[in-house]
Amino acid sequence: MFKRASINRASIYVLFALLTLAGAAPGYAQSADLIVEKKVFELPSYTTVAGATIRNVRVGWEAAGTLNADRSNAILITHFFSGTSHAFGRYNASDKVPGYWDSLIGPGKLIDTNKYYVISSDTLVNLNVKAPNVVTTGPASIDPDTGKPYGMRFPVVSIRDFVRVQKALIDSLGIKKLHAVMGASMGGLQAYEWAASYPDSVERIISIIASTGGDAFLIGWLDAWAAPIRLDPKWNGGDYYDKKAPLDGLKLSIELITLQAEQYEWAAKAFGTAPAEADKDPAQAFGNRFKIEAALDAVAASRAATSDANSLLYLVKANQLANTDPRRIKVPTLILYTPTDLIFFPPSIEATARAIAASGTHVETAQLVGPNGHLNGVLAVAQAADKIKAFLAR
Amino acid sequence: MFKRASINRASIYVLFALLTLAGAAPGYAQSADLIVEKKVFELPSYTTVAGATIRNVRVGWEAAGTLNADRSNAILITHFFSGTSHAFGRYNASDKVPGYWDSLIGPGKLIDTNKYYVISSDTLVNLNVKAPNVVTTGPASIDPDTGKPYGMRFPVVSIRDFVRVQKALIDSLGIKKLHAVMGASMGGLQAYEWAASYPDSVERIISIIASTGGDAFLIGWLDAWAAPIRLDPKWNGGDYYDKKAPLDGLKLSIELITLQAEQYEWAAKAFGTAPAEADKDPAQAFGNRFKIEAALDAVAASRAATSDANSLLYLVKANQLANTDPRRIKVPTLILYTPTDLIFFPPSIEATARAIAASGTHVETAQLVGPNGHLNGVLAVAQAADKIKAFLAR
Repeated sequence: MFKRASINRASIYVLFALLTLAGAAPGYAQSADLIVEKKVFELPSYTTVAGATIRNVRVGWEAAGTLNADRSNAILITHFFSGTSHAFGRYNASDKVPGYWDSLIGPGKLIDTNKYYVISSDTLVNLNVKAPNVVTTGPASIDPDTGKPYGMRFPVVSIRDFVRVQKALIDSLGIKKLHAVMGASMGGLQAYEWAASYPDSVERIISIIASTGGDAFLIGWLDAWAAPIRLDPKWNGGDYYDKKAPLDGLKLSIELITLQAEQYEWAAKAFGTAPAEADKDPAQAFGNRFKIEAALDAVAASRAATSDANSLLYLVKANQLANTDPRRIKVPTLILYTPTDLIFFPPSIEATARAIAASGTHVETAQLVGPNGHLNGVLAVAQAADKIKAFLAR
Repeated sequence: MFKRASINRASIYVLFALLTLAGAAPGYAQSADLIVEKKVFELPSYTTVAGATIRNVRVGWEAAGTLNADRSNAILITHFFSGTSHAFGRYNASDKVPGYWDSLIGPGKLIDTNKYYVISSDTLVNLNVKAPNVVTTGPASIDPDTGKPYGMRFPVVSIRDFVRVQKALIDSLGIKKLHAVMGASMGGLQAYEWAASYPDSVERIISIIASTGGDAFLIGWLDAWAAPIRLDPKWNGGDYYDKKAPLDGLKLSIELITLQAEQYEWAAKAFGTAPAEADKDPAQAFGNRFKIEAALDAVAASRAATSDANSLLYLVKANQLANTDPRRIKVPTLILYTPTDLIFFPPSIEATARAIAASGTHVETAQLVGPNGHLNGVLAVAQAADKIKAFLAR
């Protein structure tokens, strides 16, 4: 009985750790001493790549370490699809879990905040609208023209828009050139776009589990991630902020993302064919489910409670539009990827590496392995610690 | 303009060919001369593995070739999730497309109907309830106790139930021992189950793109395939047969299955980042879509028109329950699989092969390659023609 309960807790924990915005990799060293403060960066007006103007843009950011005298030691961390700026440290000493890469970033760690000033910001249209400490501008924000939430009247934004807002934040701090930009998945898309858009403002990039975009299969899958929200009648064309939110659609979207970010080996180890309830055989009735089904439901419900459905649709669109020209990337590039990735397939990332190198840019690659598919790129980055250390020092 | 139109037609064609029940592989030799007749097998009563009784069971079947005097030359073809009995030939000379393996099965072909009597039957709870020539018993059938469709009151059935009904059909034909059972994906699950349940009634099996089951990741994905139907308010707990069917939910289910049966390389070649409409840039408006999104919609709408939502839920459950003990498989087994499969991952199939061989059973394996992921196991079987030929003759 104890064994069953602990397997269950362990598998739920792994799922939560992988997908929650505050998910630290299990088993890594943790530090309770790095406290970060959420700050807000504001732009009175921002004009998107597509030409729309957004007023009162606000995004949250946090930092650790000290900016040196010539402001040359800053590293920007860009977050993944379901992530936030909370990559390292805790907001309060009592926080149960630190930022998602706290095992990598902090005093004396791989990305040493005794040496580097490490910054991370929430993107536009961040998913986690209802999470404490998340500050973003997107479809759930109040449109100053109407005094009501934008809903689907918010303009389409792209990965390049995320990067442009980050550039304005970096400018506001008086930083002329970042030592590095580093991010995983959607954060990796942003790293490529930083190098392409601002070759004079970044020394090097570390892009993890991401190609430069333009991948038709991923465009199709992203459409499938968005579709459950549109299918939920509570979505109501995006106008639900004064009503019940389309939580069922949002939960199914998150279930799809959870599955695709994982892999066969993870599911086999964590769940096998165990039933959700020991005395309810799935063969006997439709309502009798498998443990993995119940666990996916639980994770999706937990995440959906702090997420916004329209924001997920805007993130889908931004990721579908990602298509950085690799020939525009002229700064040294380190690419980490995983052979079992079901979101950014290895051939797409290898093609990106070849295309960047083709114009003479320095490119290094390394593989991350583990049972977690795409999420190896969040959980297993320490495997490339030596490579990252050398790349940051080159 | 012509070029754009033909790319569009070609990509739509490939999708249809891959997933429609009458999808012949493009470029393969086709034969217009094999005409098959749909017949109906009836069981007054059938008791499921889980103990429920179903009255008036009817399944369709078709055959080609001639049963020899000692009835030893029969091969049973078992169909995949979205398939039907229509594996070879045409119902009428004017049919535009033949059965899905018509390039492999017919007079003088790899599975030569001049030599073998080849049978194929519709499973219980077949998806294609509204397609002409499909005969099945499932949730859309009339419950003789109430005179109304079963809906979700139909009992849970499993792959083993599909096989038991096939065994009754084979018995009714006076066949004591099948020369072989061969099927892809869900058809491969049935082949394994045939060997395990009826070791004296089948000489050998050819299982393609399938493990023996019990795969937690697939159980989770199958749940995600089912979820859009439950999310559609028109589903109404399965009672929709006198109302509008939950077509939107069903279409999203089919979109998910389509994507997961395919692969990165297919999407890149067929669609790239082209917009659905040349003058509507996806970056400019939410409603402006990519070509792959429109194509997936079109395929899903086409398939949904002849499919039944409840039947998809029952197929999901049957596949989740698939878990044949490989140690019970004692007849020679040929396993074909593909390294890029996103439904039955190669490690799961390789584990099946090792587990069957571990008890001394003869097992052969071969890989099928191509741009189509899982569907290589339907489209690229001819790559293993020599192996199949030798295996059938051994």
